[in-house]
Amino acid sequence: MRQAFTDMVIPTNGQGMIDITVQVARWLDDQGIASGLLTIFCQHTSASLLIQENAAPAARRDVERYFARIAPESRDYEHDDEGPDDMPAHLRTALTSVHLSIPVRQGAMTLGTWQGIYLFEHRRQLHRRTLTLHLIGE
Amino acid sequence: MRQAFTDMVIPTNGQGMIDITVQVARWLDDQGIASGLLTIFCQHTSASLLIQENAAPAARRDVERYFARIAPESRDYEHDDEGPDDMPAHLRTALTSVHLSIPVRQGAMTLGTWQGIYLFEHRRQLHRRTLTLHLIGE
Amino acid sequence: MRQAFTDMVIPTNGQGMIDITVQVARWLDDQGIASGLLTIFCQHTSASLLIQENAAPAARRDVERYFARIAPESRDYEHDDEGPDDMPAHLRTALTSVHLSIPVRQGAMTLGTWQGIYLFEHRRQLHRRTLTLHLIGE
Repeated sequence: MRQAFTDMVIPTNGQGMIDITVQVARWLDDQGIASGLLTIFCQHTSASLLIQENAAPAARRDVERYFARIAPESRDYEHDDEGPDDMPAHLRTALTSVHLSIPVRQGAMTLGTWQGIYLFEHRRQLHRRTLTLHLIGE
Repeated sequence: MRQAFTDMVIPTNGQGMIDITVQVARWLDDQGIASGLLTIFCQHTSASLLIQENAAPAARRDVERYFARIAPESRDYEHDDEGPDDMPAHLRTALTSVHLSIPVRQGAMTLGTWQGIYLFEHRRQLHRRTLTLHLIGE
Repeated sequence: MRQAFTDMVIPTNGQGMIDITVQVARWLDDQGIASGLLTIFCQHTSASLLIQENAAPAARRDVERYFARIAPESRDYEHDDEGPDDMPAHLRTALTSVHLSIPVRQGAMTLGTWQGIYLFEHRRQLHRRTLTLHLIGE
């Protein structure tokens, strides 16, 4: 049994979901671990991780609009000194998650046919987001 | 240290929470791994996993009604070609989760007294849902 | 490769977020496992776990107010025999999570600069909450 780690830096360009499935799969391919557990951990409180529909761009846009609606920028927040998109970003992160656990079998993640892995950026400005990937297995 | 995997197929019959605690515990019992980490991963984007109250059916129904209310079928979604329950199913999945991590100690999951493991089906039609279970430990 | 477990009991004194980062880090320090995966599991259905902003108390209060608003005590719930704060507590738990997975590298959790680990108490009365910590690594 052994472990592998990496930090994956994802540049983001405003709010929205960024498909990172291929990038994660490529790193996994290079580790030579055929079966195990992959953890993806997002080191931020205003960007999160999501497994969602990978086929329909309209579904992705509906997800983005939904989170913009249930944690809106238009409300009054006590914590507003970092801009109107800051507090909603924390709330959207809380409603989703900053970590994913995905089994690895026969050299691949056990994702379903329609599942993609997304980094969900909740801030408007340019950011560089760091994800820590951890793999344990053999 | 070793690993075990299985795919568990759960037939679903419309929207609602299905208690899978016993089924998961039975598989765990058969693996002969007394201490470790169990991961349950749902291979879908319109069904999810939840740990919730295992005693009161009324609590379960309140949870179901709540998610029907905050991600309602009655709204206009851009992605609607798979029926009015499709996009809300993706949103309810995003608000909950598709993976659970549960420690295993002395041969059992470290669930609290009132915790049950649920597959949360968000679609109206019959489905067969695949969960991948991964166990690492000794 | 080896494992470590502990049960951490956190007394809570009404609703709100309790920073447990230091307490978790201290336990981790004592295990002598420099790289691995840490799982924190909350054995309850009316208290949950969250990784959030660790610097601004106003952000923490906004998070608390937000969950009080989207899963309010003022609604009619079928399951209400344990008090008006009981069913909303289950819902707020479902919207967040009862488990966290955090990679451990060079002897420390790979948390970002602004990330803190919180136990989120959703009930009004005094409680003692049990978290199971599991660490696997070497």
